[in-house]
Amino acid sequence: MPTLARPAILHPENIVTNQDMLSFLDNLHHDAPHKQQAFKMIKNSAIEKRHMILPLEQILTLQDFGERGAIYELQAREMACQAAKTALEQALLKPKDITMVVVTSCTGFMMPSLTACLINDLDLPATTIQLPIAQLGCVAGASAINRATEHCKASKRNNVLIVALETSSLCFHRSADRLQDFITDSLFGDGVAAVVMRADNDCSGFHVTHNQSCFMRDTEAYIQYTLTDSGFKFSLDKDVMHSISKAAPHIDEFITSNAHKKPNELDFYIFHTGGRRIQDEVTRCLALSDDALTHSRACLRDTGNTSSVAVIDVLARQFSQRHSMEQGILAAFGPGFTTEMALGYWQ
Amino acid sequence: MPTLARPAILHPENIVTNQDMLSFLDNLHHDAPHKQQAFKMIKNSAIEKRHMILPLEQILTLQDFGERGAIYELQAREMACQAAKTALEQALLKPKDITMVVVTSCTGFMMPSLTACLINDLDLPATTIQLPIAQLGCVAGASAINRATEHCKASKRNNVLIVALETSSLCFHRSADRLQDFITDSLFGDGVAAVVMRADNDCSGFHVTHNQSCFMRDTEAYIQYTLTDSGFKFSLDKDVMHSISKAAPHIDEFITSNAHKKPNELDFYIFHTGGRRIQDEVTRCLALSDDALTHSRACLRDTGNTSSVAVIDVLARQFSQRHSMEQGILAAFGPGFTTEMALGYWQ
Repeated sequence: MPTLARPAILHPENIVTNQDMLSFLDNLHHDAPHKQQAFKMIKNSAIEKRHMILPLEQILTLQDFGERGAIYELQAREMACQAAKTALEQALLKPKDITMVVVTSCTGFMMPSLTACLINDLDLPATTIQLPIAQLGCVAGASAINRATEHCKASKRNNVLIVALETSSLCFHRSADRLQDFITDSLFGDGVAAVVMRADNDCSGFHVTHNQSCFMRDTEAYIQYTLTDSGFKFSLDKDVMHSISKAAPHIDEFITSNAHKKPNELDFYIFHTGGRRIQDEVTRCLALSDDALTHSRACLRDTGNTSSVAVIDVLARQFSQRHSMEQGILAAFGPGFTTEMALGYWQ
Repeated sequence: MPTLARPAILHPENIVTNQDMLSFLDNLHHDAPHKQQAFKMIKNSAIEKRHMILPLEQILTLQDFGERGAIYELQAREMACQAAKTALEQALLKPKDITMVVVTSCTGFMMPSLTACLINDLDLPATTIQLPIAQLGCVAGASAINRATEHCKASKRNNVLIVALETSSLCFHRSADRLQDFITDSLFGDGVAAVVMRADNDCSGFHVTHNQSCFMRDTEAYIQYTLTDSGFKFSLDKDVMHSISKAAPHIDEFITSNAHKKPNELDFYIFHTGGRRIQDEVTRCLALSDDALTHSRACLRDTGNTSSVAVIDVLARQFSQRHSMEQGILAAFGPGFTTEMALGYWQ
């Protein structure tokens, strides 16, 4: 049965603290009309620092797509390979054992994609199935896990390498001065997570028993991301705050119908970091205890929202604490509005 | 067992003939150093016409990403819905029967992706699995079919809606004057293909029995596609012509080991249109009869290379001619260099 082994998580060495961000905005957008409101939100974000592939000063000098794309290609390939090698070792597998490679990344675009790079650089088998996912945003990490589960259920010999990689800092635009630009610039961080799912039972980790996708109608405007002349541009609608109260009944039903427990009776929770308000809403709407999202909160504090990377980072944080046969849920949220959920046991 | 029902194929009404293209290049790039060589290649392309979402004159006025992206969003959504509705009817299914939606499109980028649009506009179930694929180029249509096959093998109640949509004309740049720009501008066309795969046996069509991915090492440069300041930019290396002779032994082995026949003993062939040279190479390297690729050649003549759309278009052309229990192969090629293959029977 499909089991996620211990993930490898890497964050670039350039650190931006929340205080750095406040200073930067004050210097660069001193007279912006929404500055005070942005400052208040940033101070309440519960983020202490984020990691970026370049120093903030250098990011501010970036020009348009061509330059950003070139940086992405170089850094993404190196980071993805490094994390993937560690994840393979931690799953006690060799490259020849992999049957499918999934890469999620919405903050850069390559064709051939990083899946092709990983086959070449790690010497994965020529028959490896490639699944590059660029358009699922923050939900993509959980989506990759759910697609991997389906692949692993097809054969006991299947093993999936998942790499989630985001360079959100490359979406930073010096001149962007809307309130939501300030929030976006202060929320997202860079990082890479690699994890291997094994179809057999020969590793310890999160053993997935059930999975489900859940789509919320007519909420496309909640999270949007477009290609503009100056690069990818992210828009977060304030209505996104209502997303969790709408999604919660579906998460509740998924848990009760498959685990025959209430959400607050599970042993652990691997929720996408999202943001502070999203975490508070998850806790409130599912009637969880205050410490249920401890690892999601720690992840947000340490790295900001690393989009598709985050849910695998929160998974990694469980490894030192979990006991065999504990039951838990993994879930992430993203554009659509889409929720991807997986239920399982620790083994 | 997974069966592809009759696809719906739509091409926009604006037609560009090969002669239009020659006139355009002569007017706009009269003194370009590679013009004569490009003219010779275009005259030998075996393409008569292509379809585009806008008249050629209007495409020539397009500015950068923002404008191109807005046109893509509007047109892609409408075309995708229209084709999908017809495909559902032809598969004798209702929207509520769909369990997974796959959209392939490498010539535009949306988030939420077209998979979300289709769930909203067609009223697909809220639990529909979304698989948007942007980074597999011309191989994506066959890749979608192979991922759908795996999903359908998991449960007899599964049904997959696949939509392949390309607006290659939006990658056209007025000032691009390299030889490969002229070739690209003259090769690719716009269109949309929608097809439903049913896990049960209740429709006639192409019944997939086996599938396989095949990756060729260290050939990333063959087909490349990057985000530049002015939009997506496509590069085709001349070495791509060697790709088929390298891939052919793997296709041969896939056929012989699963169908226990030589490639030229199959009853039908659903190959990606690629280009004239690619088709000639497939015929030569697999020792097929001269008329084996009739439908691929007709597709190229009528529409140019419509990237991920093409292989589904060639599949659609089989429906009036095939007989029950005939055995055939479906295959496409794309960046990586990647080949996706499916073997099956007509039912």
